[in-house]
Amino acid sequence: MIPNILAERYASPAISKIWSAEGRIILEREFWIAVMKAQKELGLDIPAEAIAAYESVKNQVDLDAIMERERITRHDVKARIEEFCDLAGHEHIHKGMTSRDLTENVEQLQVYRSLLVIRDKTVATLNQMKQRAAQWQDLMITARTHNVAAQPTTFGKRIAMSGEELLSALDMLEHLIATYPVRGLKGAVGTQMDQLSLFDGDAAKASQLEAKVCAHLGIPVVFTNVGQVYPRSLDMRTVSILADIASGPSSFCRTLRLMAGHETASEGFAKGQTGSSAMPHKMNSRSCERVNGFHVILKGHVTMAGGLAGDQWNEGDVSCSVVRRLMLPDAFFALDGMFETFMTVLGQMDAYPAVIEAENNHYLPFLMTTTIMMEAVKAGVGRETAHRVIKQHAVATVNDLRSGRIKENNLLERLADDQEIPLGHEELERLLSEGRENTGTAQPQVSHFTDKVQKISEQYPEAASYQPGAIL
Amino acid sequence: MIPNILAERYASPAISKIWSAEGRIILEREFWIAVMKAQKELGLDIPAEAIAAYESVKNQVDLDAIMERERITRHDVKARIEEFCDLAGHEHIHKGMTSRDLTENVEQLQVYRSLLVIRDKTVATLNQMKQRAAQWQDLMITARTHNVAAQPTTFGKRIAMSGEELLSALDMLEHLIATYPVRGLKGAVGTQMDQLSLFDGDAAKASQLEAKVCAHLGIPVVFTNVGQVYPRSLDMRTVSILADIASGPSSFCRTLRLMAGHETASEGFAKGQTGSSAMPHKMNSRSCERVNGFHVILKGHVTMAGGLAGDQWNEGDVSCSVVRRLMLPDAFFALDGMFETFMTVLGQMDAYPAVIEAENNHYLPFLMTTTIMMEAVKAGVGRETAHRVIKQHAVATVNDLRSGRIKENNLLERLADDQEIPLGHEELERLLSEGRENTGTAQPQVSHFTDKVQKISEQYPEAASYQPGAIL
Amino acid sequence: MIPNILAERYASPAISKIWSAEGRIILEREFWIAVMKAQKELGLDIPAEAIAAYESVKNQVDLDAIMERERITRHDVKARIEEFCDLAGHEHIHKGMTSRDLTENVEQLQVYRSLLVIRDKTVATLNQMKQRAAQWQDLMITARTHNVAAQPTTFGKRIAMSGEELLSALDMLEHLIATYPVRGLKGAVGTQMDQLSLFDGDAAKASQLEAKVCAHLGIPVVFTNVGQVYPRSLDMRTVSILADIASGPSSFCRTLRLMAGHETASEGFAKGQTGSSAMPHKMNSRSCERVNGFHVILKGHVTMAGGLAGDQWNEGDVSCSVVRRLMLPDAFFALDGMFETFMTVLGQMDAYPAVIEAENNHYLPFLMTTTIMMEAVKAGVGRETAHRVIKQHAVATVNDLRSGRIKENNLLERLADDQEIPLGHEELERLLSEGRENTGTAQPQVSHFTDKVQKISEQYPEAASYQPGAIL
Amino acid sequence: MIPNILAERYASPAISKIWSAEGRIILEREFWIAVMKAQKELGLDIPAEAIAAYESVKNQVDLDAIMERERITRHDVKARIEEFCDLAGHEHIHKGMTSRDLTENVEQLQVYRSLLVIRDKTVATLNQMKQRAAQWQDLMITARTHNVAAQPTTFGKRIAMSGEELLSALDMLEHLIATYPVRGLKGAVGTQMDQLSLFDGDAAKASQLEAKVCAHLGIPVVFTNVGQVYPRSLDMRTVSILADIASGPSSFCRTLRLMAGHETASEGFAKGQTGSSAMPHKMNSRSCERVNGFHVILKGHVTMAGGLAGDQWNEGDVSCSVVRRLMLPDAFFALDGMFETFMTVLGQMDAYPAVIEAENNHYLPFLMTTTIMMEAVKAGVGRETAHRVIKQHAVATVNDLRSGRIKENNLLERLADDQEIPLGHEELERLLSEGRENTGTAQPQVSHFTDKVQKISEQYPEAASYQPGAIL
Repeated sequence: MIPNILAERYASPAISKIWSAEGRIILEREFWIAVMKAQKELGLDIPAEAIAAYESVKNQVDLDAIMERERITRHDVKARIEEFCDLAGHEHIHKGMTSRDLTENVEQLQVYRSLLVIRDKTVATLNQMKQRAAQWQDLMITARTHNVAAQPTTFGKRIAMSGEELLSALDMLEHLIATYPVRGLKGAVGTQMDQLSLFDGDAAKASQLEAKVCAHLGIPVVFTNVGQVYPRSLDMRTVSILADIASGPSSFCRTLRLMAGHETASEGFAKGQTGSSAMPHKMNSRSCERVNGFHVILKGHVTMAGGLAGDQWNEGDVSCSVVRRLMLPDAFFALDGMFETFMTVLGQMDAYPAVIEAENNHYLPFLMTTTIMMEAVKAGVGRETAHRVIKQHAVATVNDLRSGRIKENNLLERLADDQEIPLGHEELERLLSEGRENTGTAQPQVSHFTDKVQKISEQYPEAASYQPGAIL
Repeated sequence: MIPNILAERYASPAISKIWSAEGRIILEREFWIAVMKAQKELGLDIPAEAIAAYESVKNQVDLDAIMERERITRHDVKARIEEFCDLAGHEHIHKGMTSRDLTENVEQLQVYRSLLVIRDKTVATLNQMKQRAAQWQDLMITARTHNVAAQPTTFGKRIAMSGEELLSALDMLEHLIATYPVRGLKGAVGTQMDQLSLFDGDAAKASQLEAKVCAHLGIPVVFTNVGQVYPRSLDMRTVSILADIASGPSSFCRTLRLMAGHETASEGFAKGQTGSSAMPHKMNSRSCERVNGFHVILKGHVTMAGGLAGDQWNEGDVSCSVVRRLMLPDAFFALDGMFETFMTVLGQMDAYPAVIEAENNHYLPFLMTTTIMMEAVKAGVGRETAHRVIKQHAVATVNDLRSGRIKENNLLERLADDQEIPLGHEELERLLSEGRENTGTAQPQVSHFTDKVQKISEQYPEAASYQPGAIL
Repeated sequence: MIPNILAERYASPAISKIWSAEGRIILEREFWIAVMKAQKELGLDIPAEAIAAYESVKNQVDLDAIMERERITRHDVKARIEEFCDLAGHEHIHKGMTSRDLTENVEQLQVYRSLLVIRDKTVATLNQMKQRAAQWQDLMITARTHNVAAQPTTFGKRIAMSGEELLSALDMLEHLIATYPVRGLKGAVGTQMDQLSLFDGDAAKASQLEAKVCAHLGIPVVFTNVGQVYPRSLDMRTVSILADIASGPSSFCRTLRLMAGHETASEGFAKGQTGSSAMPHKMNSRSCERVNGFHVILKGHVTMAGGLAGDQWNEGDVSCSVVRRLMLPDAFFALDGMFETFMTVLGQMDAYPAVIEAENNHYLPFLMTTTIMMEAVKAGVGRETAHRVIKQHAVATVNDLRSGRIKENNLLERLADDQEIPLGHEELERLLSEGRENTGTAQPQVSHFTDKVQKISEQYPEAASYQPGAIL
Repeated sequence: MIPNILAERYASPAISKIWSAEGRIILEREFWIAVMKAQKELGLDIPAEAIAAYESVKNQVDLDAIMERERITRHDVKARIEEFCDLAGHEHIHKGMTSRDLTENVEQLQVYRSLLVIRDKTVATLNQMKQRAAQWQDLMITARTHNVAAQPTTFGKRIAMSGEELLSALDMLEHLIATYPVRGLKGAVGTQMDQLSLFDGDAAKASQLEAKVCAHLGIPVVFTNVGQVYPRSLDMRTVSILADIASGPSSFCRTLRLMAGHETASEGFAKGQTGSSAMPHKMNSRSCERVNGFHVILKGHVTMAGGLAGDQWNEGDVSCSVVRRLMLPDAFFALDGMFETFMTVLGQMDAYPAVIEAENNHYLPFLMTTTIMMEAVKAGVGRETAHRVIKQHAVATVNDLRSGRIKENNLLERLADDQEIPLGHEELERLLSEGRENTGTAQPQVSHFTDKVQKISEQYPEAASYQPGAIL
C-alpha cells in the first residue's frame, strides 16, 4: 500500500489519528449511536438492547470487509451501514438520515478537532518562540533590508517579529473555532424533510434532535440554511487560515537560512549529530527548508479549496468529494508536520555571537555616519564640510573593502586621521560603542511579545508545555 | 494610456477613488501633515505657517510632474516629497521617517477604507437577498442534487442558502476590520530608531507620536514587532476573505445559470431591454457568468498574496512591491464589481412559476413514492407487494418518458389503475398535493435568514439602502 | 498506516507501482548497478562478483529496516546505501556520487515513466471518444450558449470538441516527453568534480559515464548546466501539462452533468446497477463530478509546483523536497484516476434521443425565424412586415410557454394562421424539418477528429485498446 | 482614469501597443475588412467602394463614442459595429459572423503577436546572459547548497545554469507558437451554420473563407471542432509557459540577492547613480526583487487561467470574459516588464572578485580536506590516522572561527604544524592552489551554453541585439 507521505513522515499522532480510516469509522459509529439515543429520548421506538449491541461492537473495525462491501454497492456509506448492522445484529441506525447527514457532520468533527490540535500546537510554538526571544532579547545584530545591512536590531526582536505574526494568525484561528458552523441534520436537500417524516411532521422534535446531536459533536454553532452540503467556502476559509498560521514560521525559517549563510546563526544539530569531517562548517538548514516546503504545500491546498468555493450547483453534488478527501487531511498533516519541524528548529537552533559581532563591526561605522556628522558639527566644523569629508571616506572605505585593498572596515581611523574632522580615535570609538547599543525600542517590543505569549500560555498551560516528537 | 479594466468597466467610484493615483497622493499628504502636527504638539520646532502652507497645496496633484521627478531620482517616495515641498515652499515633512513609514501606513489605510466599503456593499447585498428570499419564501421548487431532481424546497430557501453563506463571510470580514493592525511609525527596520533620534531618545514621545498618527488613520490596532514592513500574511488574510465573500454570490449565480437553462428562472433584462426576435427565449445569464468570473479573478489574487506570505527576508525588502501595487487594488475592484453586478442580478431577476410547476409535476410523483407505499400499507396491502408494484411502475414511467412514449409523468394513473394498489385517483392526487406543500423547514429557515439580515440592516441602515449603479 | 487516498481509491496499478516505496528502492538499486557497470567498463576496479552480489539482492526490499536506519542517520540516502551494501556484503555502490546524483535521476525516471503511462491513457481515452463521436455523429441536439438553446449541432460534435481539446494537450505531452531533460551525473554542485576525481580528472570518461547511465534510464535528453538539482520549473511544466490534459475531459464531464439535468444524456450505470425505486430518474453524475474534482486537485498541484519554480537559491537546497515527495506522485495519481473514471463514463454513458428531440422541438421554431422571414420575403411580403409579425408571434409564444398558457411551442401554427405571412402549415413544417437537419459542418468536423485519432491509435495500437479497471 | 499599473510602469511599448484599446479596435477593423475582401473574392456582392470607405476610416478611433454606444446597447461588439459603419457610411461588415467570430480571433491574434514579442525578448535576454556567462566563465566562486559553502564553481556557470533553464522554456514557447491554433470562423456554436447560410450551403466556400481569413491573421494552425469559443485550456497553456519563462530569471535574481548580502556581487547601479553617504555599501537589489515579484504575479495568472480551463458549459458562455480581459494582457505586461527589468540587471550587475576570493579562502581549506587526506596517505601515513587528525583540526578550526578566537581559516597551518601529517606548508599551499582551480566541467559547460545561444542569436539577429528601455 502506498502511504500518505505527510502523515507517515511528518505529522504527529495527535493529528493523524483523527484522520485515520479506523478513527473515521469509529467517529461515524459514535455519531450514529448518538443519533439513536437522541431519537429514543424523543420517543422513537428503538430498543435499548439494540443501542447496547451497536456500542459493544463499535470498535471492531475491519477495513477490508467494508471495502469489499463498497465494491459491490458502489456506495461507501451504504457499505458502512451494512457492516455496522451486521456486526451488531440490528437495523436501527441511520433512521431519517441521508448519507450527508452522516458524512458532513463527521468530517466537520474531524476538521474541528484538528483545529483544536493546531490551536494547541500554535500555543506551544509561541511559548518556545517566547523563550528564544527572551534569551536573545539583547543580542544586537545587524538588521537587513534588501538583504543588506541597514540598522542595529536584536536577535530577540527578529524572533518576536515572526512571533507576533503567528500571534495574529492565532487570533484568526480562535475566531474560526468560535464561529465554525456544523451542518447538522438537514436531510437530503436541507429542508429536514427526512427528519420531519420520522417525527410525523413535528418540527420541534426535529429541532431537538439536531440540538442533541450537535451537543454530542461539541461544536457550538450550527447552520440553518444549507443544502445537501455545507458551503465549501468554509473549507476555503479553514485552509486559508492554516496557510496564514504557517506564514510567521515560514518567514522566520527563511531568515534563519539566510543567517546560516553568514554563519551568524543556524538551526543546529540534533543531539549527538556532528558535521562531516570534510565540511565541518556545513550545518545545513534542512529543517528550515522543510518548513518553507510545508508552506508551499498549504498554498496549493488553498488553491484546491478555492476550486470548490462558489461552485455549488443547486443544493449540492459530489464534485468536491475527491478534493476534500485529499485536501482536508493533507492540509492538517502538512501544518502539523510544519509545527513539529519548526519546534525542533526552535529547540536546537543556535546563534554565534562572535560572528555576529564581526558582522556588526563590519557595518557599524557606515551605519553611524549620520551621528558622526552631527557630532562633528557640534564640535565646530561646517555641515557642508563634514558631509563632504565623511562621504568621501565612506565611499573610499567600501570600495577598498570590495576591491580587497583592506579586510576590515577602517572608516573610523580614516576620519580620526583627517584634520577636517575634529574628532579623535577615542571619541569616535565611544560613538561607535554607543551606536552598538542603540537598538531603539527592540527590547521593550520583545517584552511586549513575551508578555502576550505568557498570558496565552497561562490560558492553555498543557498546550504550552508540549514538546515536539523526534523528526526525520 | 492603458486603463485598469476592473476599475474602468466594473468597479464603482466608492472603491476606485480610494485607489486612484490622485487619491493616493492626497492620502499621503494628509498623513505627512498629521505627522507634522503631532510632532509639533510633541515639541518639535515646526512652524505653523509651514503646516498651513502644506495644507493649502495638498490637493494640487500633478501626476506628470511627479513622474518626471521619479524618472530622475528612481525613487518614488523621494519624488513625491520633493514635489510636495516645492509646492509648499517648505521642507518639514517626512522628518524622522523612512519611506515605509509613509507607504505602509497609507496603503493600509487604503485597504482599511476599502474593507469598510466592502462591508457596506455586503450589507446592501444581503438586504436585497433578504427581499428576494422573502418574496419567494413559499414558492415550491424541485431541489436538485447531482443536478437531478431530489426533493421539494422553496426558491426563497435556495436564495437564503447562499445568503447565509454570505452572512458567514461577513462575520469574518467584521472580525478582520476589528483586528486589522496597522504598521505604525517604526523606522527603517522596525526599532523606531529614527523616531527616537528625533526626540533625543525619548521613547514615550515616539510612542505618543505613533498613537496620534494612528488616531489620524482611524485604525484602532497597531503592530508592535515589525520590520521594515508589516507581515504579508496580513495581505493574504485580507484577500482570502475577499474571495470568501464572493463565494455565496458565486454559488447562487451558478445555480441561476442552471435554472436559466431550464427556464425556471433568469437574471432578467435591464428595463427596456428585450430579447432578439430570432431568439426571444434567450435571456443570457451574462451578469451571473460575470459574477463567476470575478470569483476566478479573486482566487488568482489569493495565489499572488500567497506568493508573498511567509517569504520575508530578514527585516523585509521590496520583492512584494509590484505584486501589491497590482493585487491589492485589483482584488477590491474585482469584489466591488462583483457586488455591483450581483446586486443588478438580484434587482432584475425573475422566476417563472408555470415552468417551475411543470418541472415539479414532472418529478413529484417519483419523489412521492415512499409516501404512497406507506399509505398503501396502511390501506392493507403487504409491504413487499407495494414495493414491488410501485417500483415496477416507476421504472416503466421513467423509461417511457426517456424513450418518448409518453410526454408527461403518468405514474399516478398507472398506480391508480393497478388493482394491487388500493388507492384511487383522488387519494393519490391528494397525496401528491400534500407532497407539493411539503417543503419541510424551508420556510422557517428563510425567516431565520431574513431576521438576521434585518438586524444587520438596522445596524447599518445607510449601507442597507444602497442601490447598484448601472452596469455594462 | 494512513494510505495515499489517490493511489488507493482511484489510480491504477500502472501508475502506482512506479511510485511505490518498494518500486522506488528497486529503481535506485538498478541505477546504482548501472553506474557500477559503467564505471567498471571505464576502468574502475569494481569486482564482477560485487556487482553480481548486488544484483542478486536488489529485489529484497525491507522498508522497516531502511526506516530504522534512517531514524539513526537522519539521512535517507545514507540509510539506503547501508542497507543495500549490507545485503550484498560489498561496498562498491555510490562511488563518485552525491545523494542528488541518485535521487534526481531516479525521480526523473519515475516522472518520465509516468508520462509514458499518461500518454498511453490519453491515447486510449481518445480512442473511446472517437467511438462515441462516431456513434452520435449525426444525432442532432440543441447547442447551447450561456446554457440557453442557440443553434443545432450534433452530439458527436460535442464529444469531438472536447476530444480535439485533449488532442491538443496530447501534442504538448508528446513534446514534453521528447524534450524532457534528465539531470545526469553532475556531482554536488553541478561541476562533476566528484566524477572527475573518480577518473583522475579525465573529463572524457566522466562524460562517457554520464552517457552510459542516461542510456540505462532511457531518457534521451540531458541537462548540461545544472546545480545540485535540476531547475524546478521543469516540474511546474510537467504538472501544468497534466492539468492541461485533464481540461478536455473536465469540460465534457461538466457538459454531461448539465445534460443529465435535462435528461438528454447521462453517464449511465455500471452493469447491473439500477436506480432506486423512490427515484428511478436519478442517474447521478457522480463519476463526471469526480472528473471535475480531479481537475481541481491538479490545479492545486500546479500552484505547489509554481511555489518551487524560480525559487532556487544558489546551486540548490531541499526546500522543494517535501513538496515534490507529495506533489509529483499525487499529480500522476490524480490524472490517472481521472482517466480511469472518465473512460468508465465514456463506456457507460447514454443519450436519450426522445428527450433530445423534445428539446429540439421546443426550441427549433425560434431558431428558424430568420429562415422563415427570408422565405416570407421571397414569397412577396415586405421585409419590415415580416419582421414585425414574426417577432410579435415569437415573443408571445415564449411568454405563453413561460406563463404556462401553452405547453408546447406553437409558433409555427401562429405563423401559418396569420394572414400576413404567406406560408402555410406544410411549408413551415418543411422548413423546420430542413432546419433540423442543418447542423452545418458538424458531421465533417467529427470525421476530421475521428481520422486524427485513428492515426494516433495506429501509432500506439496497444495503448489504444486499453480498457479501464473497475472503479469505486 | 486609473491606469493599468503593469502597462504604465513596467511593460514596454512593444507589448502595450498590442493590447491598447485603440490598437484592439484597429485590429478588429482590419479583421472585418479582411473578411469582406475574402467574401467579395468568393462571390458575395460587396461593393469595392464600401471596402475602400471602411479602409479610409479604420484608424479613426473614438473610444468615448464607442463607450457611449455600449452603454445603450449593453453589447460591446454591436457598439463597435455601429461606430465603424457610421464612420464608413456603409453596412457591409460582420456578415455571416457572430460576435465570437470577431473577438476570439482578434484576441488570439493579440496573444499570438505577444508571444512573438516574448520570443524576441527571450532571445535578447539569452544573448545578454551569454555575454555575462562568457565574461565570468573562469571566475571561481564558492558554490553553495543549503545556502552554505559546498564546492568550487564559476560565476559564469551560475549564470549559465539559469540561462539553460531559460533556454529550455524558450523551446516550449517556440513549440507553442508553432502549434497555437486559432478558432477561425465557426459561427455561433461552432458548426459554421452562419457562414454556410452566407454561401447558400456551399461548404467549400465557407472553408475557403476561413482559410483566407487565417492567412490574414498569419496564424498557421486552426481548430476544427470548437464551440462558441476555443477551449480555455489553451489560455492556461499559454500563461503557464509565460510563468515557465520567468523561472530562470527569477532563480538567478534570487541568487543575486543572496550574493548581494555577501557583497560578492550586486545588481549594480544605473549610470550616474551612487549609494548614499550614510550607507555607501547599500546597493539594494530592488530590480532583482522586482523580477521575483513579477514571477509571483504570473503564478497568480496561472491560477486564474486554471479557473477557466475545463469549465466550459456546452458550447460555451462568457463566464471567462472578465477574467480574460484582465489576465491575458496583464500576464504579457508582467512578463515583458520582467524582461525589461532583468535585462537592466544583466546590463548593470557587477561582481567583486576580492570579496569572492576572501570567501573562497575562508572555505577552501575545508573543501580540500579529502584531497589532503589522500595525499597524506600517499606520503605514508595510515588512512585512519590521517582521517582522525584532519577531522580534529577541521572541527577545531570551524569552532574557533565561530567563537571568534580566530578571524581567518588557519586549518592548513594547523595541519602543517602537526607531526602526524607528513605534508609541509608549501605542499599544502600547492594543493589549495590546485583546488582553487578545480571547477570541474564548469568552463566547458558555460561554452556549451554560449554556443547554443550563439546559434539562436544568429537565427534571430534583430531580436538578439535588443536593449531594454530605461526602467523606473
